[in-house]
Amino acid sequence: MRRRKKPGAKEKLLSHEVYLCNQPEEYKGQWEHYFIEKKNIHVELGTGRGQFITTLAEMNPDIHYIGIEIKEEVLLKAVEKAEAKNLKNIVFLWYDINKIDDIFDEGELSRIYINFCDPWPKKRWEKRRLTHRNFLEKYRSILTRDGEIHFKTDNEKLFEFSLNQFSNSDLLLRNISFDLHHSETKDSVTTEYEDKFSAMGMKIYRCEALKRI
Amino acid sequence: MRRRKKPGAKEKLLSHEVYLCNQPEEYKGQWEHYFIEKKNIHVELGTGRGQFITTLAEMNPDIHYIGIEIKEEVLLKAVEKAEAKNLKNIVFLWYDINKIDDIFDEGELSRIYINFCDPWPKKRWEKRRLTHRNFLEKYRSILTRDGEIHFKTDNEKLFEFSLNQFSNSDLLLRNISFDLHHSETKDSVTTEYEDKFSAMGMKIYRCEALKRI
Repeated sequence: MRRRKKPGAKEKLLSHEVYLCNQPEEYKGQWEHYFIEKKNIHVELGTGRGQFITTLAEMNPDIHYIGIEIKEEVLLKAVEKAEAKNLKNIVFLWYDINKIDDIFDEGELSRIYINFCDPWPKKRWEKRRLTHRNFLEKYRSILTRDGEIHFKTDNEKLFEFSLNQFSNSDLLLRNISFDLHHSETKDSVTTEYEDKFSAMGMKIYRCEALKRI
Repeated sequence: MRRRKKPGAKEKLLSHEVYLCNQPEEYKGQWEHYFIEKKNIHVELGTGRGQFITTLAEMNPDIHYIGIEIKEEVLLKAVEKAEAKNLKNIVFLWYDINKIDDIFDEGELSRIYINFCDPWPKKRWEKRRLTHRNFLEKYRSILTRDGEIHFKTDNEKLFEFSLNQFSNSDLLLRNISFDLHHSETKDSVTTEYEDKFSAMGMKIYRCEALKRI
Protein backbone atom coordinates (compact mmCIF):
# COMPACT_ATOMS: atom_id res chain seq x y z
CA MET A 1 0.00 0.00 0.00
CA ARG A 2 1.30 3.38 -0.93
CA ARG A 3 1.59 5.78 2.01
CA ARG A 4 -1.11 8.43 1.73
CA LYS A 5 0.38 11.86 2.05
CA LYS A 6 -1.28 14.37 4.30
CA PRO A 7 -1.85 17.49 2.23
CA GLY A 8 0.12 20.51 3.35
CA ALA A 9 2.60 18.64 5.58
CA LYS A 10 5.53 19.77 3.48
CA GLU A 11 4.59 23.46 3.61
CA LYS A 12 3.88 23.24 7.33
CA LEU A 13 7.23 21.54 7.94
CA LEU A 14 9.17 24.11 5.92
CA SER A 15 7.57 26.95 7.91
CA HIS A 16 9.39 25.75 11.06
CA GLU A 17 12.61 27.54 10.26
CA VAL A 18 14.00 27.47 13.80
CA TYR A 19 13.97 23.69 14.09
CA LEU A 20 14.52 22.69 10.47
CA CYS A 21 17.82 23.22 8.69
CA ASN A 22 17.14 23.40 4.97
CA GLN A 23 20.65 23.50 3.52
CA PRO A 24 22.48 20.99 5.71
CA GLU A 25 25.25 20.50 3.12
CA GLU A 26 26.39 24.07 3.86
CA TYR A 27 27.18 23.08 7.43
CA LYS A 28 29.37 20.09 6.60
CA GLY A 29 32.36 20.46 8.90
CA GLN A 30 30.74 23.57 10.39
CA TRP A 31 28.03 22.26 12.67
CA GLU A 32 29.58 23.86 15.70
CA HIS A 33 28.94 27.21 14.01
CA TYR A 34 25.35 26.30 13.36
CA PHE A 35 24.90 25.67 17.06
CA ILE A 36 27.14 28.67 17.91
CA GLU A 37 28.76 26.79 20.80
CA LYS A 38 31.09 23.79 20.44
CA LYS A 39 29.57 20.71 22.06
CA ASN A 40 29.39 17.02 21.26
CA ILE A 41 26.91 16.26 18.49
CA HIS A 42 24.60 13.22 18.65
CA VAL A 43 22.52 12.29 15.61
CA GLU A 44 19.46 10.06 15.33
CA LEU A 45 18.97 8.40 11.95
CA GLY A 46 15.30 8.07 11.10
CA THR A 47 14.08 10.21 13.97
CA GLY A 48 10.39 9.53 13.27
CA ARG A 49 7.96 11.39 15.52
CA GLY A 50 10.84 12.56 17.70
CA GLN A 51 9.94 11.28 21.17
CA PHE A 52 13.37 9.72 21.67
CA ILE A 53 15.56 12.60 20.54
CA THR A 54 13.50 15.41 22.08
CA THR A 55 13.53 13.57 25.43
CA LEU A 56 17.32 13.20 25.23
CA ALA A 57 17.73 16.86 24.23
CA GLU A 58 15.69 17.91 27.25
CA MET A 59 17.76 15.69 29.57
CA ASN A 60 21.16 16.70 28.19
CA PRO A 61 21.43 20.43 27.49
CA ASP A 62 25.20 20.05 27.03
CA ILE A 63 24.83 17.97 23.89
CA HIS A 64 23.68 19.11 20.47
CA TYR A 65 21.14 16.83 18.81
CA ILE A 66 20.35 16.41 15.13
CA GLY A 67 17.40 14.28 14.01
CA ILE A 68 17.27 13.10 10.40
CA GLU A 69 14.07 11.87 8.79
CA ILE A 70 12.92 11.53 5.19
CA LYS A 71 9.16 11.33 5.77
CA GLU A 72 7.92 14.88 6.12
CA GLU A 73 4.70 14.01 7.90
CA VAL A 74 6.35 12.28 10.85
CA LEU A 75 9.18 14.79 10.93
CA LEU A 76 6.61 17.55 11.35
CA LYS A 77 5.50 15.84 14.59
CA ALA A 78 9.10 15.77 15.82
CA VAL A 79 9.61 19.44 15.04
CA GLU A 80 6.39 20.33 16.87
CA LYS A 81 7.56 18.39 19.94
CA ALA A 82 10.87 20.32 20.01
CA GLU A 83 8.97 23.57 19.67
CA ALA A 84 6.51 22.71 22.43
CA LYS A 85 9.45 21.97 24.73
CA ASN A 86 11.25 25.14 23.58
CA LEU A 87 14.49 23.17 23.11
CA LYS A 88 17.65 25.10 22.24
CA ASN A 89 19.98 22.21 21.46
CA ILE A 90 18.24 20.39 18.63
CA VAL A 91 17.70 20.69 14.90
CA PHE A 92 16.03 18.43 12.34
CA LEU A 93 17.01 17.60 8.79
CA TRP A 94 14.55 16.46 6.15
CA TYR A 95 17.14 14.36 4.44
CA ASP A 96 18.09 11.03 2.91
CA ILE A 97 20.48 9.04 5.14
CA ASN A 98 22.14 7.54 2.05
CA LYS A 99 23.81 10.91 1.57
CA ILE A 100 24.87 11.36 5.20
CA ASP A 101 28.48 11.94 4.23
CA ASP A 102 27.40 15.00 2.25
CA ILE A 103 26.35 16.75 5.44
CA PHE A 104 28.88 15.64 8.04
CA ASP A 105 32.64 15.83 7.88
CA GLU A 106 35.17 13.34 9.23
CA GLY A 107 35.03 13.03 13.02
CA GLU A 108 32.16 15.50 13.38
CA LEU A 109 29.74 13.32 15.37
CA SER A 110 30.32 11.65 18.70
CA ARG A 111 27.27 9.42 18.68
CA ILE A 112 24.78 7.99 16.18
CA TYR A 113 21.45 6.50 17.28
CA ILE A 114 19.65 4.00 15.03
CA ASN A 115 16.27 3.04 16.46
CA PHE A 116 13.88 0.54 14.88
CA CYS A 117 15.02 1.11 11.33
CA ASP A 118 13.33 -0.75 8.47
CA PRO A 119 14.55 -4.38 8.59
CA TRP A 120 14.34 -4.81 4.77
CA PRO A 121 13.84 -8.53 5.32
CA LYS A 122 14.69 -9.90 1.89
CA LYS A 123 18.30 -10.83 1.21
CA ARG A 124 18.39 -8.73 -1.98
CA TRP A 125 17.49 -5.65 0.08
CA GLU A 126 20.22 -6.05 2.69
CA LYS A 127 22.23 -3.09 1.39
CA ARG A 128 19.31 -0.84 2.34
CA ARG A 129 19.51 -1.80 6.01
CA LEU A 130 20.99 1.09 7.99
CA THR A 131 23.45 -1.27 9.66
CA HIS A 132 24.83 -2.69 6.40
CA ARG A 133 28.62 -2.42 6.27
CA ASN A 134 28.42 0.19 3.48
CA PHE A 135 26.54 2.47 5.88
CA LEU A 136 28.87 1.56 8.74
CA GLU A 137 31.82 2.73 6.68
CA LYS A 138 30.20 6.13 6.28
CA TYR A 139 29.35 6.31 9.99
CA ARG A 140 32.89 5.32 10.95
CA SER A 141 34.26 8.17 8.90
CA ILE A 142 31.99 10.88 10.35
CA LEU A 143 32.34 9.66 13.96
CA THR A 144 34.97 10.98 16.35
CA ARG A 145 37.80 8.67 17.35
CA ASP A 146 35.87 7.34 20.36
CA GLY A 147 32.47 7.68 18.69
CA GLU A 148 29.62 5.25 19.29
CA ILE A 149 26.61 3.82 17.49
CA HIS A 150 23.63 2.92 19.69
CA PHE A 151 21.24 0.52 18.03
CA LYS A 152 17.77 -0.76 18.96
CA THR A 153 15.37 -3.02 17.09
CA ASP A 154 12.52 -5.42 17.75
CA ASN A 155 13.56 -7.55 14.76
CA GLU A 156 15.69 -10.54 15.77
CA LYS A 157 16.96 -11.24 12.25
CA LEU A 158 18.01 -7.61 11.80
CA PHE A 159 19.74 -7.70 15.18
CA GLU A 160 21.68 -10.85 14.29
CA PHE A 161 22.63 -9.28 10.93
CA SER A 162 23.66 -6.03 12.61
CA LEU A 163 25.86 -7.67 15.28
CA ASN A 164 27.77 -9.37 12.46
CA GLN A 165 28.04 -6.20 10.43
CA PHE A 166 29.28 -4.17 13.41
CA SER A 167 31.79 -6.82 14.35
CA ASN A 168 33.02 -7.38 10.79
CA SER A 169 33.51 -3.64 10.48
CA ASP A 170 35.85 -3.72 13.51
CA LEU A 171 33.41 -1.89 15.73
CA LEU A 172 33.60 -3.15 19.30
CA LEU A 173 30.29 -4.36 20.72
CA ARG A 174 29.13 -3.36 24.19
CA ASN A 175 26.00 -3.85 26.32
CA ILE A 176 24.37 -6.37 24.03
CA SER A 177 20.83 -7.02 25.24
CA PHE A 178 18.35 -9.55 23.83
CA ASP A 179 15.48 -8.22 25.93
CA LEU A 180 16.15 -4.64 26.91
CA HIS A 181 13.07 -4.04 29.03
CA HIS A 182 13.81 -7.10 31.16
CA SER A 183 17.57 -6.67 31.48
CA GLU A 184 20.05 -4.98 33.77
CA THR A 185 21.29 -2.47 31.19
CA LYS A 186 18.34 -0.11 31.22
CA ASP A 187 18.05 2.45 28.47
CA SER A 188 15.17 4.44 29.85
CA VAL A 189 14.54 6.75 26.88
CA THR A 190 12.15 5.05 24.46
CA THR A 191 10.72 5.73 21.02
CA GLU A 192 6.99 5.83 20.20
CA TYR A 193 7.37 2.55 18.29
CA GLU A 194 9.23 0.92 21.19
CA ASP A 195 6.51 1.84 23.72
CA LYS A 196 3.87 0.33 21.49
CA PHE A 197 5.64 -2.93 20.67
CA SER A 198 7.15 -3.44 24.11
CA ALA A 199 3.65 -3.06 25.61
CA MET A 200 2.54 -5.85 23.26
CA GLY A 201 5.18 -8.08 24.86
CA MET A 202 7.70 -7.95 22.03
CA LYS A 203 11.36 -8.20 22.89
CA ILE A 204 13.57 -5.18 22.25
CA TYR A 205 17.18 -5.87 21.21
CA ARG A 206 19.90 -3.31 21.83
CA CYS A 207 23.65 -2.91 21.54
CA GLU A 208 26.36 -0.30 21.30
CA ALA A 209 29.12 -0.43 18.70
CA LEU A 210 32.25 1.54 19.47
CA LYS A 211 34.73 2.94 17.01
CA ARG A 212 38.13 2.49 18.53
CA ILE A 213 40.60 2.20 15.69
CA MET B 1 19.61 -35.39 42.22
CA ARG B 2 23.10 -36.66 42.63
CA ARG B 3 24.52 -38.29 39.52
CA ARG B 4 24.71 -42.03 40.04
CA LYS B 5 28.14 -43.28 39.21
CA LYS B 6 28.49 -46.34 37.08
CA PRO B 7 30.72 -48.78 38.97
CA GLY B 8 34.04 -49.44 37.27
CA ALA B 9 33.93 -46.50 34.84
CA LYS B 10 37.07 -44.98 36.33
CA GLU B 11 39.07 -48.21 36.07
CA LYS B 12 37.83 -48.82 32.57
CA LEU B 13 38.72 -45.27 31.54
CA LEU B 14 42.21 -45.49 33.01
CA SER B 15 42.86 -48.70 31.09
CA HIS B 16 42.68 -46.78 27.79
CA GLU B 17 46.27 -45.63 27.91
CA VAL B 18 46.54 -44.77 24.21
CA TYR B 19 43.73 -42.25 24.25
CA LEU B 20 43.97 -40.92 27.78
CA CYS B 21 46.86 -38.75 28.96
CA ASN B 22 47.15 -39.14 32.70
CA GLN B 23 49.80 -36.56 33.55
CA PRO B 24 48.83 -33.66 31.30
CA GLU B 25 50.76 -31.12 33.44
CA GLU B 26 53.98 -32.79 32.25
CA TYR B 27 53.19 -31.79 28.68
CA LYS B 28 52.63 -28.10 29.37
CA GLY B 29 54.50 -26.32 26.58
CA GLN B 30 55.43 -29.75 25.15
CA TRP B 31 52.28 -30.97 23.45
CA GLU B 32 53.99 -31.13 20.10
CA HIS B 33 56.29 -33.77 21.60
CA TYR B 34 53.32 -35.72 22.91
CA PHE B 35 51.94 -35.86 19.39
CA ILE B 36 55.47 -36.35 17.96
CA GLU B 37 54.71 -34.08 14.98
CA LYS B 38 54.15 -30.32 15.19
CA LYS B 39 50.62 -29.43 14.06
CA ASN B 40 47.96 -26.98 15.18
CA ILE B 41 46.22 -28.08 18.36
CA HIS B 42 42.45 -27.70 18.82
CA VAL B 43 40.88 -28.35 22.22
CA GLU B 44 37.28 -29.04 23.17
CA LEU B 45 36.31 -28.02 26.70
CA GLY B 46 33.76 -30.40 28.15
CA THR B 47 34.02 -32.93 25.39
CA GLY B 48 31.18 -35.12 26.71
CA ARG B 49 30.54 -38.32 24.77
CA GLY B 50 32.95 -37.17 22.07
CA GLN B 51 30.83 -37.19 18.89
CA PHE B 52 31.90 -33.66 17.96
CA ILE B 53 35.65 -33.95 18.51
CA THR B 54 36.06 -37.47 17.10
CA THR B 55 34.19 -36.43 13.94
CA LEU B 56 36.48 -33.43 13.56
CA ALA B 57 39.57 -35.54 14.18
CA GLU B 58 38.46 -37.93 11.47
CA MET B 59 37.86 -35.10 9.01
CA ASN B 60 41.08 -33.21 9.72
CA PRO B 61 44.08 -35.51 10.09
CA ASP B 62 46.40 -32.49 9.95
CA ILE B 63 45.18 -31.11 13.25
CA HIS B 64 45.81 -32.51 16.73
CA TYR B 65 42.73 -32.69 18.95
CA ILE B 66 42.52 -32.71 22.73
CA GLY B 67 39.19 -33.32 24.47
CA ILE B 68 38.85 -32.37 28.13
CA GLU B 69 36.10 -33.74 30.34
CA ILE B 70 35.69 -34.09 34.10
CA LYS B 71 32.94 -36.75 34.15
CA GLU B 72 34.64 -40.10 33.76
CA GLU B 73 31.55 -41.97 32.60
CA VAL B 74 30.90 -39.77 29.56
CA LEU B 75 34.61 -39.45 28.83
CA LEU B 76 34.82 -43.22 28.60
CA LYS B 77 32.29 -43.08 25.74
CA ALA B 78 34.43 -40.50 23.95
CA VAL B 79 37.58 -42.59 24.34
CA GLU B 80 35.76 -45.65 23.01
CA LYS B 81 34.63 -43.66 19.95
CA ALA B 82 38.22 -42.61 19.18
CA GLU B 83 39.38 -46.17 19.58
CA ALA B 84 36.63 -47.55 17.32
CA LYS B 85 37.68 -45.07 14.64
CA ASN B 86 41.37 -45.85 15.24
CA LEU B 87 42.17 -42.14 15.32
CA LYS B 88 45.83 -41.09 15.50
CA ASN B 89 45.42 -37.37 16.13
CA ILE B 90 43.41 -37.21 19.33
CA VAL B 91 43.89 -37.55 23.06
CA PHE B 92 41.57 -37.05 26.02
CA LEU B 93 42.21 -35.52 29.41
CA TRP B 94 40.19 -36.35 32.51
CA TYR B 95 40.69 -32.92 33.94
CA ASP B 96 39.13 -29.84 35.53
CA ILE B 97 38.92 -26.89 33.11
CA ASN B 98 39.44 -24.46 36.00
CA LYS B 99 43.09 -25.52 35.94
CA ILE B 100 43.50 -25.31 32.16
CA ASP B 101 46.51 -23.00 32.48
CA ASP B 102 48.33 -25.76 34.38
CA ILE B 103 48.36 -27.93 31.26
CA PHE B 104 48.83 -25.51 28.36
CA ASP B 105 51.50 -22.90 27.89
CA GLU B 106 51.16 -19.46 26.33
CA GLY B 107 50.20 -19.60 22.66
CA GLU B 108 50.02 -23.39 22.59
CA LEU B 109 46.48 -23.80 21.19
CA SER B 110 45.11 -22.46 17.94
CA ARG B 111 41.45 -23.16 18.65
CA ILE B 112 39.18 -23.81 21.62
CA TYR B 113 35.68 -25.28 21.21
CA ILE B 114 33.05 -24.73 23.90
CA ASN B 115 29.87 -26.64 23.12
CA PHE B 116 26.73 -26.55 25.25
CA CYS B 117 28.47 -25.85 28.51
CA ASP B 118 26.49 -25.63 31.74
CA PRO B 119 24.63 -22.27 31.71
CA TRP B 120 24.81 -21.86 35.51
CA PRO B 121 21.70 -19.71 35.34
CA LYS B 122 21.83 -17.92 38.68
CA LYS B 123 23.68 -14.60 38.83
CA ARG B 124 25.79 -15.76 41.80
CA TRP B 125 27.09 -18.67 39.69
CA GLU B 126 28.19 -16.59 36.69
CA LYS B 127 31.89 -17.06 37.43
CA ARG B 128 31.43 -20.80 36.80
CA ARG B 129 30.25 -20.23 33.21
CA LEU B 130 33.00 -21.28 30.82
CA THR B 131 32.65 -17.97 28.96
CA HIS B 132 33.09 -15.80 32.04
CA ARG B 133 35.83 -13.22 31.52
CA ASN B 134 38.05 -14.96 34.10
CA PHE B 135 38.06 -18.05 31.88
CA LEU B 136 38.47 -15.92 28.75
CA GLU B 137 41.63 -14.44 30.22
CA LYS B 138 43.08 -17.92 30.60
CA TYR B 139 42.02 -18.92 27.08
CA ARG B 140 43.51 -15.74 25.64
CA SER B 141 46.85 -16.56 27.21
CA ILE B 142 47.05 -20.15 25.95
CA LEU B 143 45.80 -19.31 22.44
CA THR B 144 48.12 -18.48 19.56
CA ARG B 145 48.15 -14.89 18.28
CA ASP B 146 45.41 -15.60 15.74
CA GLY B 147 43.67 -18.20 17.91
CA GLU B 148 39.91 -18.63 17.98
CA ILE B 149 37.16 -19.72 20.35
CA HIS B 150 34.15 -21.44 18.75
CA PHE B 151 31.08 -21.41 20.96
CA LYS B 152 27.69 -23.10 20.70
CA THR B 153 24.75 -23.17 23.09
CA ASP B 154 20.99 -23.65 23.12
CA ASN B 155 20.64 -21.24 26.04
CA GLU B 156 19.72 -17.72 24.92
CA LYS B 157 20.65 -16.07 28.22
CA LEU B 158 24.05 -17.75 28.22
CA PHE B 159 24.58 -16.67 24.61
CA GLU B 160 23.75 -13.04 25.41
CA PHE B 161 26.07 -13.19 28.44
CA SER B 162 28.84 -14.78 26.37
CA LEU B 163 28.67 -12.26 23.52
CA ASN B 164 29.17 -9.50 26.09
CA GLN B 165 32.01 -11.33 27.83
CA PHE B 166 33.80 -12.02 24.53
CA SER B 167 33.41 -8.46 23.38
CA ASN B 168 34.40 -6.92 26.73
CA SER B 169 37.51 -9.12 26.66
CA ASP B 170 38.51 -7.58 23.32
CA LEU B 171 37.83 -10.75 21.39
CA LEU B 172 36.45 -10.00 17.95
CA LEU B 173 33.14 -11.69 17.18
CA ARG B 174 32.50 -13.46 13.88
CA ASN B 175 29.71 -15.55 12.34
CA ILE B 176 27.17 -14.85 15.05
CA SER B 177 24.15 -17.06 14.49
CA PHE B 178 20.88 -17.03 16.48
CA ASP B 179 19.58 -20.17 14.78
CA LEU B 180 22.46 -22.21 13.44
CA HIS B 181 20.49 -24.99 11.83
CA HIS B 182 18.40 -22.51 9.82
CA SER B 183 21.18 -20.10 8.86
CA GLU B 184 23.67 -19.62 6.09
CA THR B 185 26.75 -20.24 8.23
CA LYS B 186 26.52 -24.00 8.50
CA ASP B 187 28.63 -25.78 11.05
CA SER B 188 27.91 -29.32 10.02
CA VAL B 189 29.65 -31.14 12.88
CA THR B 190 27.24 -31.56 15.77
CA THR B 191 27.36 -32.82 19.34
CA GLU B 192 25.07 -35.52 20.77
CA TYR B 193 23.27 -32.89 22.84
CA GLU B 194 22.84 -30.63 19.80
CA ASP B 195 21.28 -33.41 17.69
CA LYS B 196 18.79 -34.14 20.44
CA PHE B 197 17.73 -30.58 21.19
CA SER B 198 17.78 -29.39 17.60
CA ALA B 199 15.48 -32.29 16.67
CA MET B 200 13.12 -31.01 19.37
CA GLY B 201 12.99 -27.69 17.52
CA MET B 202 15.23 -25.73 19.89
CA LYS B 203 17.36 -22.96 18.46
CA ILE B 204 21.13 -23.37 18.50
CA TYR B 205 23.20 -20.21 18.98
CA ARG B 206 26.77 -20.04 17.73
CA CYS B 207 29.61 -17.56 17.37
CA GLU B 208 33.35 -17.36 16.95
CA ALA B 209 35.53 -15.08 19.07
CA LEU B 210 38.93 -14.21 17.65
CA LYS B 211 42.00 -13.20 19.57
CA ARG B 212 43.72 -10.53 17.57
CA ILE B 213 45.59 -8.32 20.00
